[in-house]
Amino acid sequence: MSEHEFYMNLALTNARAMKGQTEPNPLVGSVIVNENRIVGVGTHLKAGEPHAEIHALRMAGEKARGGTIYVTLEPCSHHGRTGPCAEAIVKAGLKKVVVATLDPNPVVAGNGIKILKDANIEVEIGICEEESKKLNEVFNKFIVTGKPFITLKSAMTLDGKISSFSWDSKWITSEEARKDVHQLRHEHVGILVGVNTVVKDNPELTTRIPNGRNPIRIILDSSLKIPFEAKVVTDKIAETWIFTSQQYSREAKEKLEQLGVKVFVTSGRERVDLHETLSILGEHSVSSVLIEGGGEVNASFLQEGLVDKLILYVAPKLIGGRTAPSFFSGAGIEKMADAIKIDNMEVEKVGIDFKFTGYVNN
Amino acid sequence: MSEHEFYMNLALTNARAMKGQTEPNPLVGSVIVNENRIVGVGTHLKAGEPHAEIHALRMAGEKARGGTIYVTLEPCSHHGRTGPCAEAIVKAGLKKVVVATLDPNPVVAGNGIKILKDANIEVEIGICEEESKKLNEVFNKFIVTGKPFITLKSAMTLDGKISSFSWDSKWITSEEARKDVHQLRHEHVGILVGVNTVVKDNPELTTRIPNGRNPIRIILDSSLKIPFEAKVVTDKIAETWIFTSQQYSREAKEKLEQLGVKVFVTSGRERVDLHETLSILGEHSVSSVLIEGGGEVNASFLQEGLVDKLILYVAPKLIGGRTAPSFFSGAGIEKMADAIKIDNMEVEKVGIDFKFTGYVNN
Repeated sequence: MSEHEFYMNLALTNARAMKGQTEPNPLVGSVIVNENRIVGVGTHLKAGEPHAEIHALRMAGEKARGGTIYVTLEPCSHHGRTGPCAEAIVKAGLKKVVVATLDPNPVVAGNGIKILKDANIEVEIGICEEESKKLNEVFNKFIVTGKPFITLKSAMTLDGKISSFSWDSKWITSEEARKDVHQLRHEHVGILVGVNTVVKDNPELTTRIPNGRNPIRIILDSSLKIPFEAKVVTDKIAETWIFTSQQYSREAKEKLEQLGVKVFVTSGRERVDLHETLSILGEHSVSSVLIEGGGEVNASFLQEGLVDKLILYVAPKLIGGRTAPSFFSGAGIEKMADAIKIDNMEVEKVGIDFKFTGYVNN
Repeated sequence: MSEHEFYMNLALTNARAMKGQTEPNPLVGSVIVNENRIVGVGTHLKAGEPHAEIHALRMAGEKARGGTIYVTLEPCSHHGRTGPCAEAIVKAGLKKVVVATLDPNPVVAGNGIKILKDANIEVEIGICEEESKKLNEVFNKFIVTGKPFITLKSAMTLDGKISSFSWDSKWITSEEARKDVHQLRHEHVGILVGVNTVVKDNPELTTRIPNGRNPIRIILDSSLKIPFEAKVVTDKIAETWIFTSQQYSREAKEKLEQLGVKVFVTSGRERVDLHETLSILGEHSVSSVLIEGGGEVNASFLQEGLVDKLILYVAPKLIGGRTAPSFFSGAGIEKMADAIKIDNMEVEKVGIDFKFTGYVNN
């Protein structure tokens, strides 16, 4: 590990520790070094409070002068609630700035770097860039596209099945893996399934861990055939939003709205328009969605190139069967050479199961 | 690691190093310790030559007296070409014997231990037992059952498919994984596929690595519809054995035999009898078989409980499709609770792919 990586890793560790308390702001950490000694450490704690660099500069005081500041994200250039960090760095007399990655926020996007360079400060970009980008993957997508970051999660047997041929699926994975899923739900603003999952399983789609935050339950239902007595309609534990197509029943829509469910009609003629759905979700500040669909919903999102991240819990068991559904059904892709590639795939053990995490190369 | 494990690991390392040169004997290693010093190390090198314990005793000489001998397998009790090791240990005056696992060979099976105990030697069994059993997994099954150890290997996409809906499968995995498969072929006495794989792909089923040993090519073909011009029939690179059912064509059998192919007729009425196939293979000294079948052949072996070990190469890609074949087709299992469990599953990276290895809990 180089010296630069050592300090940037400390900044990343401090940034990461604030996960869940900075929204809608990204996670950012900072370290100031002068004459081979750390003279300041900072991290962004909460939206509206000082940015990481400001905390680090305050800690360093006069010792910042002539030093090097490490920041996991490009220092900001805009006069927000806490003033531009790039200007504060110039004022404090830093000699060098090391940045992990540029701020994708169009309001910053290189302007912070420009202020620093104009003041003749040496700037180095790209140290631990991948780690920093990953840390704020949801923020990075949402700020640029206005659409939620989409994670598709599925549990499956080693032979890729999400149930037996008789649609039995209880349980594929171990308790540990199922608990891990509730942590995922906790970390997402919305959770999405197709109406067939609601009809078949009548799930609650809530977060069953202590202090768990319930995501908004998002149901795709092209005709509004959802049963009025479904738990997601009646239990009031969390919000339920239904996205439908032009095939929707007006009567059902009225009834559902009376029951407290939000109904969004997309322009899709027979099926819910997925692109429009994601735009609407983004407009309503839903920055992240966890898809827990069946094979067909999964296929729609995958084949339309709408999934960012894939998380698969694979159980060490085989169920077999020509007709048993796989997690990715749909029409499928014709040529192996055109298969959807998953980048940076990693695997870890969760209980007796394996958890794969990767990024869809759309 | 305990003292016992330390010495047994050394014995296992020496045993493992002889992989491929002891057949039909198992791999065995031995270490003799006296007053906290290693005084002898031995390993079985070749059938017909001394067993591991004898080599270790020779190295130790008089220093064996009063010491402890570690052996990865129960010392033998039978007068074979090299005399019973248990008696040699008694004669050498050892005080204690530490054994990893009992010898499953019915000719030994506890008799070695009995000789030692009758001579008032302290015996401890079970140190590194799993590792020792794994080392000789093929031998252990074959010596007890007379049937080959069966490894089912498949390459698949992350969503469990062995081809696209249009039967395109070139290539699922990376070059590294495909090379690894040739190493597997090298280590097996037989390789087994269904006739449909021969018809569709016309494979050679040979080992394409330097000094690679070609396995016997075993084809399941219930009616003998295999094309006479198939590579496995004509190329003479390795032996080809075809197993058929009562539906076989006499004409085709004659022709195939003229072409140098062995044909075995099983009692299966419409399909090849798999149990009988494995018995016949065992009688012909085929101690290990690698199944590289399609989804239906894989399903037959899995659902009849005939697979010992599973090796899956999983590529980080998705192909999808309701009708795209999975590696385990067939009828499948009805209830998730009855799914086939895979024990001791391990995963490692091979190129960009993941290699899963586990044991079928039949």
